[in-house]
Amino acid sequence: MSNNKYMKDDKKTDDLVERIAQRVLDKLEGLTPNEHIPELDCQHLQTGCINCGLCIIKKPATVEHIVKNGASRIGANPGINGDFDKELASMIDHTILKPDATRAELIQVCDEAKKYHFATVCVNSSNIALVARQLRGSGVKPIAVVGFPLGAATTHAKVFEAKEAIHDGAQEIDMVINIGALKSREYQVVHDDIKQVVDAASPHKVKVIIETAQLTCEEKVEACVLAKTAGAAFVKTSTGFGGGGATVEDIELMRKVVGPDMEIKASGGIRTKEDAEAMIAAGANRIGASASVAIVTGSKGKRQSKY
Amino acid sequence: MSNNKYMKDDKKTDDLVERIAQRVLDKLEGLTPNEHIPELDCQHLQTGCINCGLCIIKKPATVEHIVKNGASRIGANPGINGDFDKELASMIDHTILKPDATRAELIQVCDEAKKYHFATVCVNSSNIALVARQLRGSGVKPIAVVGFPLGAATTHAKVFEAKEAIHDGAQEIDMVINIGALKSREYQVVHDDIKQVVDAASPHKVKVIIETAQLTCEEKVEACVLAKTAGAAFVKTSTGFGGGGATVEDIELMRKVVGPDMEIKASGGIRTKEDAEAMIAAGANRIGASASVAIVTGSKGKRQSKY
Repeated sequence: MSNNKYMKDDKKTDDLVERIAQRVLDKLEGLTPNEHIPELDCQHLQTGCINCGLCIIKKPATVEHIVKNGASRIGANPGINGDFDKELASMIDHTILKPDATRAELIQVCDEAKKYHFATVCVNSSNIALVARQLRGSGVKPIAVVGFPLGAATTHAKVFEAKEAIHDGAQEIDMVINIGALKSREYQVVHDDIKQVVDAASPHKVKVIIETAQLTCEEKVEACVLAKTAGAAFVKTSTGFGGGGATVEDIELMRKVVGPDMEIKASGGIRTKEDAEAMIAAGANRIGASASVAIVTGSKGKRQSKY
Repeated sequence: MSNNKYMKDDKKTDDLVERIAQRVLDKLEGLTPNEHIPELDCQHLQTGCINCGLCIIKKPATVEHIVKNGASRIGANPGINGDFDKELASMIDHTILKPDATRAELIQVCDEAKKYHFATVCVNSSNIALVARQLRGSGVKPIAVVGFPLGAATTHAKVFEAKEAIHDGAQEIDMVINIGALKSREYQVVHDDIKQVVDAASPHKVKVIIETAQLTCEEKVEACVLAKTAGAAFVKTSTGFGGGGATVEDIELMRKVVGPDMEIKASGGIRTKEDAEAMIAAGANRIGASASVAIVTGSKGKRQSKY
């Protein structure tokens, strides 16, 4: 019965996502002015995932997608190899974005990333040159955030920052959308802001941070549609500075919108192995965290910065 | 007796500020490596202002400075002209920096600034073109923040953003220092970061946000010395995003460091006329606030965004 209800809601959610996506695309093509954008009843957008932990039964497509993307450990075997979870580590962007990060702290984060084989180290653009030097030859990618954390710099400024970061050694770019433009339904502005950074960063991947905590469900769908249309590689939930972080429900919704082939990064407030695994089960391909060592070793450790 | 004690502490504070400033200048000139920077006992840095409200008696120089800068209303007469305080209004940067600010909200802030004759409207760089158009011919200056709010973008990115903002109509620039570099005692990096933005923005004034809530007293002194040495017009307390705001004690300390001729902007958490007047009495020349209308009308109104 519960399962039936779930499936019924799922269909409604799919329909609603489809209608919102079409509305965004119509506006991008100049077919509808703001005042003619239909109001939609979005209550069903929140019912996709009830965090029941039964993804394998209820969501075979999601789990298949995760397996395809290399997270084969999802399921019965927690995948502990040696003293830390290597497969989980390979999906983590080890992150230090606090503005008062010192040189010594940045070097420590790079050392940790090399030791635990994290996917990347994610830093502010002024630190990317140092981090790229530290990571040289390690297989750990340096990545830089751009227009961070407000997303309210001009597109040109974001493009400049992305290009310089890549010149300084960044191999991926995590940019923040223009949230105010999204809220003003200036879809073309949001789209072009992303597209220009994607073009400037090519062939490096761009992640688009939509700052879920500041968006309505409707806006989350719109943001994902715009990121995908603009050619971004990833949608990403949060900056960690926007008053909220990743939720299983948001990852589910984002996966539903972008389909199986676009990547999703869950970030903000992920502090434990259980947090990270819940995000991956919901559809995330990458985890952004500063508590990465605790996550892969399962240790409690001291509470780390949320950035 | 209390007055004597105050004066004694004041002398100790002056000496300490002088020693910290000299230490910064010596390092800038390459005279001392990090490991030879002497440790100082900074407990006296916090005793400058005890928020006693007796500035006119105890701080004639400060009050004289405020009067010289046009805030002649400080004293017995609260300076209410008509239904709002015009002199106070002329010292306020009416501010909207929240990332989800819509076009409609930005236009409203500009309309308020024109109505109440605020000094400026302070926005993120992606909104400066709109705000400059709205304020044209009004006498209210558009100002843009740069490297905001973390200060962790590269110097080149800050310079680019400042130049573009000025091209788009900004008449002042509020930049954030590289906090991590300050904490790593990389004074030259902090200095050059400011200097290059100052040069790029010239002849427009640059305010240097030092994010007081994230600094030790010693670092506050160092940041002020570096901003002054680099040729900035203002030091400014806070972004409003850094976990704290302006305090009377910090304004007192900053005034002590930069002397009477450099300007100081108090920002972050200033919501009432009393807050604003306390900052001005402590030595501030400019107030950054989003609750500007409530401040100049003395109304309580609804609680506004802290950004």
